[in-house]
Amino acid sequence: MKNYDVIIIGGGPSGIITGVTGKKQNPDTSFLMIKEEEKGLVPCGIPYVFHDLDDISQNKMGPAPFVKAGGDVLIDKVIDIDIKRKTLKNASGEELSYGKLIFATGSIPTVPSFLKGYDLKNVEQIPKSYDYIAGLKEKILAAKNVVVIGGGFIGAEVAEQIAKYDTKKVTLVEMQKHCLGQAFSPDFAVLADKNLRAIGVNVLTENTVKELVGKDGKVNSVILTSGEIIESDLVISAIGYKPNTDLAKRAGLQLTKSGTIRVDKFMRTNEENVYAVGDCSQTIGFITGRTDHIMLASTATAEARILGYNLCKIGILRAFSGTLSVFSTELNGFAFASAGAIEQSAEAGNVEYVTGSFADVDRHPGALPGAKEIRIKIIVSPKNGEIIGGEIYGGKSIGEMINIIALAIQKFVTVYEMVSFQVGTHPLLTTAPTKYSLIKACEDAISKINCKQR
Amino acid sequence: MKNYDVIIIGGGPSGIITGVTGKKQNPDTSFLMIKEEEKGLVPCGIPYVFHDLDDISQNKMGPAPFVKAGGDVLIDKVIDIDIKRKTLKNASGEELSYGKLIFATGSIPTVPSFLKGYDLKNVEQIPKSYDYIAGLKEKILAAKNVVVIGGGFIGAEVAEQIAKYDTKKVTLVEMQKHCLGQAFSPDFAVLADKNLRAIGVNVLTENTVKELVGKDGKVNSVILTSGEIIESDLVISAIGYKPNTDLAKRAGLQLTKSGTIRVDKFMRTNEENVYAVGDCSQTIGFITGRTDHIMLASTATAEARILGYNLCKIGILRAFSGTLSVFSTELNGFAFASAGAIEQSAEAGNVEYVTGSFADVDRHPGALPGAKEIRIKIIVSPKNGEIIGGEIYGGKSIGEMINIIALAIQKFVTVYEMVSFQVGTHPLLTTAPTKYSLIKACEDAISKINCKQR
Repeated sequence: MKNYDVIIIGGGPSGIITGVTGKKQNPDTSFLMIKEEEKGLVPCGIPYVFHDLDDISQNKMGPAPFVKAGGDVLIDKVIDIDIKRKTLKNASGEELSYGKLIFATGSIPTVPSFLKGYDLKNVEQIPKSYDYIAGLKEKILAAKNVVVIGGGFIGAEVAEQIAKYDTKKVTLVEMQKHCLGQAFSPDFAVLADKNLRAIGVNVLTENTVKELVGKDGKVNSVILTSGEIIESDLVISAIGYKPNTDLAKRAGLQLTKSGTIRVDKFMRTNEENVYAVGDCSQTIGFITGRTDHIMLASTATAEARILGYNLCKIGILRAFSGTLSVFSTELNGFAFASAGAIEQSAEAGNVEYVTGSFADVDRHPGALPGAKEIRIKIIVSPKNGEIIGGEIYGGKSIGEMINIIALAIQKFVTVYEMVSFQVGTHPLLTTAPTKYSLIKACEDAISKINCKQR
Repeated sequence: MKNYDVIIIGGGPSGIITGVTGKKQNPDTSFLMIKEEEKGLVPCGIPYVFHDLDDISQNKMGPAPFVKAGGDVLIDKVIDIDIKRKTLKNASGEELSYGKLIFATGSIPTVPSFLKGYDLKNVEQIPKSYDYIAGLKEKILAAKNVVVIGGGFIGAEVAEQIAKYDTKKVTLVEMQKHCLGQAFSPDFAVLADKNLRAIGVNVLTENTVKELVGKDGKVNSVILTSGEIIESDLVISAIGYKPNTDLAKRAGLQLTKSGTIRVDKFMRTNEENVYAVGDCSQTIGFITGRTDHIMLASTATAEARILGYNLCKIGILRAFSGTLSVFSTELNGFAFASAGAIEQSAEAGNVEYVTGSFADVDRHPGALPGAKEIRIKIIVSPKNGEIIGGEIYGGKSIGEMINIIALAIQKFVTVYEMVSFQVGTHPLLTTAPTKYSLIKACEDAISKINCKQR
């Protein structure tokens, strides 16, 4: 039986980064990655396969950096694991033994099996499979009336991309009051609805799908709980993902209530020498300290770097301090980003907070060509002034601006420090130094804290 | 004699922000701002008046927020100050008394009086004066062959803007090896030359102007030390700015060697109740601890906020911790940014360092429309891994990305912390989470530190 010092199951972002980082730190240790499909995809790039990218091959992602670092890759499917004996068995029949085993098995779309008609032809999901997505693109190109179920990031992005085809009608059905309502407060989320409508998406919020109706086994309309019937030759369900942990469960690993693999802050499971990282592993909120359900490639890769550096020996004494859930997207050319707590999550987590807001333009003077509106709201702990969250709406630059807030949260920066934060500003790139939006939002929060205290 | 609790001399960014912040903190205190010209300009927007903005009025900036907060404004020129009596005299003859006096007198262009022909007609500078700049725009519109002296930020930006007119020839003469060579290391600065050339600027580096030659009192050619003669009906000198401190000197305030007003970390001068802020005041490098010559609106406003919060009573116990010099610009659609130490300034300041570099694209996958190359280099203290500087080249988003580095420097964040930094990433807005450029540059620095240590 062939042996590897380290075997990684899964070739997504967390598998690749754990592999690269771990192998670079431990060049004399043998690493194997087992993945089910030859070709992989940039997960967050999937919606853009449907329009902005000419060809799915442009969204390819593979373990090349891991291979370059000296790791081996095997295309196969692990079907059984014996944790006591430290061996595993692949679908091909091959058996392997390992020193350390890493679950990086990711997540899979939730199938809307509670819906009548969910198994009709042309009722699809968005799995992270190259061949599936290639097939779905063909179906989208052929479709005339598409219904997307779920207005989270994936649903909103897919609907936006399909709406870019003048010949197609797209309807987006969202249960909550606004799209992106999990990551943004209502005053920001409403702008998602607005921008989706502006690009031609028929956004139906506070509505759900009651039934999918087909003809000859293929979907041809969607009945909503509102009673409305929407003609549709293609339905894409984007109602969420669940951790891909059946194998882990069968192997006897402890799972959380939500089905993720229980891990500690070094990504260690309850079994010696077995680790889990990325979407399949438990995450704990940085702000709330409670288990949450964040599945983000950026979170997964942060975990993966920590695991990679500390896998064989604790090398960088840095544990995963909890998920910050830093989100961003762009709809109709307007960018949305949030980090840490928002009002709803602060309420739900019983976190005391005040907000600080500011609105401006993202260039200065605002008359410069291409200038876009910018809105910012931060969430601040009134006791000590620490920034614990933020949301920004505006032009492309806010995709990096949210990372200033993300770093501020992770380093426990207060609004008092932030008001004298030295920033770089430039007419063509940012708001004015006299009213740099993040600083102005901090000043607003300070004045609210002062009012509360008096 | 009319009395004000606080009088601010100057209506640029530092005057305005000191006024707004101070007045808001102390609503019962009377504030007066004395400024020489009715209309003001966004200083960093000046180059864009020459092309990108249709009209100079689009780049107007005034003390409206200060007035709104309850401050008074007087258009006049302070010509004399009696610090003992706490009075000042204006050009109009009016005398005023004050409780606290703030110098926010800014900076003025260095006149190239060492050059023969410097006083010819159509030899211009870039002062921060509305009427002057309005007149200069007329001259630029009329000119055919423009020579810009000095390839720092202002010179490079002005040359770039003029080059956007197809009918005009622009030559930029820079003494150093590359344009922007003060703020960027040679491998980044060379990209400034490249982009200026790409947009049509005749960039002549390692060259200086020997003489300006005129006819009938108006410039018509420029002789370089290389011997080359360049036909020119307009010469714009952008060789630097000097602090506007004649008045302060006459009033008896202590100045530094470089002519700035000596201040402590709360912006207090050597005289009780007299303060100085912005370009006219001394700055001390955050990294080197030595007096430097940074004149940036973003630095000025950071100082101004500290002064405003602490003017009447020390309210936010936060002193100015030294200038970080965070720069950014855009040339030919490519953005340049730097913060803190670069290789040259680290060498000059006797600072031990290693670098960490990475190159990528600013979207993921890179095939997405509008994706731009991104290059990053950070400067790291090898002893403890602290990030002490960085440079980035790429698309517009790096204008905010540099502020992540700026915050990291100000909060003494190490590369070890940064490798597990949770970032927001999105295909249309940032590099990929698997290779977020700043994290990759940190990994590169870590590997260099490890090599050095072994």
